[in-house]
Amino acid sequence: MSIYLDHAATTPLRREALEQMLPLLTDDYGNPSSVHGPGRRARAALDESRERVATALNSEPREIVFTSGGTEAINLAIKGTAWAGKARGNRLVTSAAEHHAVLHTMRHLEKFGFEIVTLPVDRYGRVDPDQLDAAINDRTILVSLMLANNEVGTIQPMADLVRRVRGHRAVAIHVDAVQAAPYIAIDVRELDVDMLSIAAHKFEGPKGVGALYLRHGTILLPQIQGGTQERYRRAGTENVAGAVGMAAALELSVAERSLVAPRLARLRDRLRDAVLALPNVELTGHPRKRLPGHLSVVARESDGAAVVMNLDLAGIACSTGSACTTGSTEPSHVLTALGYPEEEARGSIRLTLGRTTFEGEVEHAADLIPQTIARLRNATAMVATEI
Amino acid sequence: MSIYLDHAATTPLRREALEQMLPLLTDDYGNPSSVHGPGRRARAALDESRERVATALNSEPREIVFTSGGTEAINLAIKGTAWAGKARGNRLVTSAAEHHAVLHTMRHLEKFGFEIVTLPVDRYGRVDPDQLDAAINDRTILVSLMLANNEVGTIQPMADLVRRVRGHRAVAIHVDAVQAAPYIAIDVRELDVDMLSIAAHKFEGPKGVGALYLRHGTILLPQIQGGTQERYRRAGTENVAGAVGMAAALELSVAERSLVAPRLARLRDRLRDAVLALPNVELTGHPRKRLPGHLSVVARESDGAAVVMNLDLAGIACSTGSACTTGSTEPSHVLTALGYPEEEARGSIRLTLGRTTFEGEVEHAADLIPQTIARLRNATAMVATEI
Repeated sequence: MSIYLDHAATTPLRREALEQMLPLLTDDYGNPSSVHGPGRRARAALDESRERVATALNSEPREIVFTSGGTEAINLAIKGTAWAGKARGNRLVTSAAEHHAVLHTMRHLEKFGFEIVTLPVDRYGRVDPDQLDAAINDRTILVSLMLANNEVGTIQPMADLVRRVRGHRAVAIHVDAVQAAPYIAIDVRELDVDMLSIAAHKFEGPKGVGALYLRHGTILLPQIQGGTQERYRRAGTENVAGAVGMAAALELSVAERSLVAPRLARLRDRLRDAVLALPNVELTGHPRKRLPGHLSVVARESDGAAVVMNLDLAGIACSTGSACTTGSTEPSHVLTALGYPEEEARGSIRLTLGRTTFEGEVEHAADLIPQTIARLRNATAMVATEI
Repeated sequence: MSIYLDHAATTPLRREALEQMLPLLTDDYGNPSSVHGPGRRARAALDESRERVATALNSEPREIVFTSGGTEAINLAIKGTAWAGKARGNRLVTSAAEHHAVLHTMRHLEKFGFEIVTLPVDRYGRVDPDQLDAAINDRTILVSLMLANNEVGTIQPMADLVRRVRGHRAVAIHVDAVQAAPYIAIDVRELDVDMLSIAAHKFEGPKGVGALYLRHGTILLPQIQGGTQERYRRAGTENVAGAVGMAAALELSVAERSLVAPRLARLRDRLRDAVLALPNVELTGHPRKRLPGHLSVVARESDGAAVVMNLDLAGIACSTGSACTTGSTEPSHVLTALGYPEEEARGSIRLTLGRTTFEGEVEHAADLIPQTIARLRNATAMVATEI
């Protein structure tokens, strides 16, 4: 038995995406920059992928920059606009619950004279619009916030936040939609943002490819120099098969969202009820304004890492939090930002469902996960008694 | 009929590489940072790929940084060591015949106070060891040179050049081996360099993946911040399938090199003799010290772009020079650096063979290409006469 409940870390590549990638991995191997037939076929596939991604986000093809993933897209957005805007100001605003791709990029820029304002978040991980408003001054050039949190699933009140930023002159807004993309309808015009990052492998596309939506007219200093690819915004021979796979997966995720999201929310609620029935287990993140397939809890008097390992032995794949910080002995910076003390944060467990998760898997997990937490608690209590 | 003679632009993905990639694109979809079973399987595939790439270059697995391609590897090498070394000096040395991934990265750094020394090259594209030696002073922190030129195929006298750099204290050496990798044995210990870049799609691996060899102990400022991947040197969820495909293709190219390279040289010589039999056609790049499958010429009184387009109509895919600068109306910066005046550079044609090129294709090309050049010359001459 093998039940995958770690879709926030990565998702299986969907069959339709792979099928559309295969011609680019076999016959149509040309370099899109070549003018001959094989080159033009690759160029056509790349152009079509760009159109499909642009349409899915309600943007224009020229506003899509293909990257090697969400992290590169985020780095390009933040560093690109920070350096391009330096003559106007050096202040960058973000929140304490962002992904490390944002926070560590900000920390990197701090070494180069940028001032980073890291806003606190509430118990659910949300930024307060008033605090955001107050953090922006005349030297502020960029605000970067995530649409949905990867560790606790909370969806930001983005419309309110964007409106407050728009009350100030010439502040670029970047939205990290890496975790949100498959589950929340993303319309960059409606969101009224300047940049938005996505990563294909979060929505059943391939690893190693992502995209940055860059509103036409947004000035950015490219971060990878070389050839003229991506309209001079990102050099390097394009990962054509990757772009095709991303386009296919994104398009399907948009088409299926209205069916998939409610189904995932229902299955997630079933699992949530089972896990929260245990004493001393608390939901982390917002109870309602959260990603549909996302369940995260802290189980007090539990070691999340031990729970995850025991569940893995029992065939259930889940995590304590972000895969990107696994191996770290630090407690999650997100839970710390939400106000959880270190000992509670150590009891965190994240269970994230995906389109391919079926009911029987959730039923089984709903039995096994509470049992495992309870069993490990008893074992710990017995050891404590014996001592 | 379709004959692909543009292997310097990109190569078909070889079947064995795709076959090894497919499990990672289907069942083994985990995130290598996840601790559970699916994550560990992905991690194992990634680790094994790193070992295979390391072995192929005679380096250690910890010295291999996976990137999204050759351009990113080159950017990381140059910017990473430039910024890390800025306290010691700001002078970077390169040559005028490098790829734009090097030259444009250097130009980018110039804006940040780095001093770029661009060495001239001889008629074949080679750097003079004495001039290199003289260009290095106490503020020099990096030398970046290519092992083989992509446009004219010339192989640099790298051993001599490296020896001269080693006569100075603490200057890092980066070698762009993107074009050389499939055809020249690369032993980073023997080369005695600190960094070396490769791109999978140049040796029948997938597009969107490359690697930087980074000698253990070389200090580098990472260029993409985020998670802890690649030992903190390059953040972002790893392109596991890409790494596996690159490892497979590189391993095979090393194993087959002693058979493939002489065969390609022989076929290339056949094609060269046919093309040079035309009047007013000159080989560009070194006559002997060049990549085995690489033929580049300037045909005077010819428009290279027109030749390439006419050959494409006849089913032969080739190029005027680097695919990365296609669409540009500028003459090749490489041919300009080699001393060709603009009007001669406009007659450049590049024909690059690969492992899958067979004799019948070369025979056909050896007939058709000189005919096409001659026919276009005649047509131009007739127009000129009529005027």
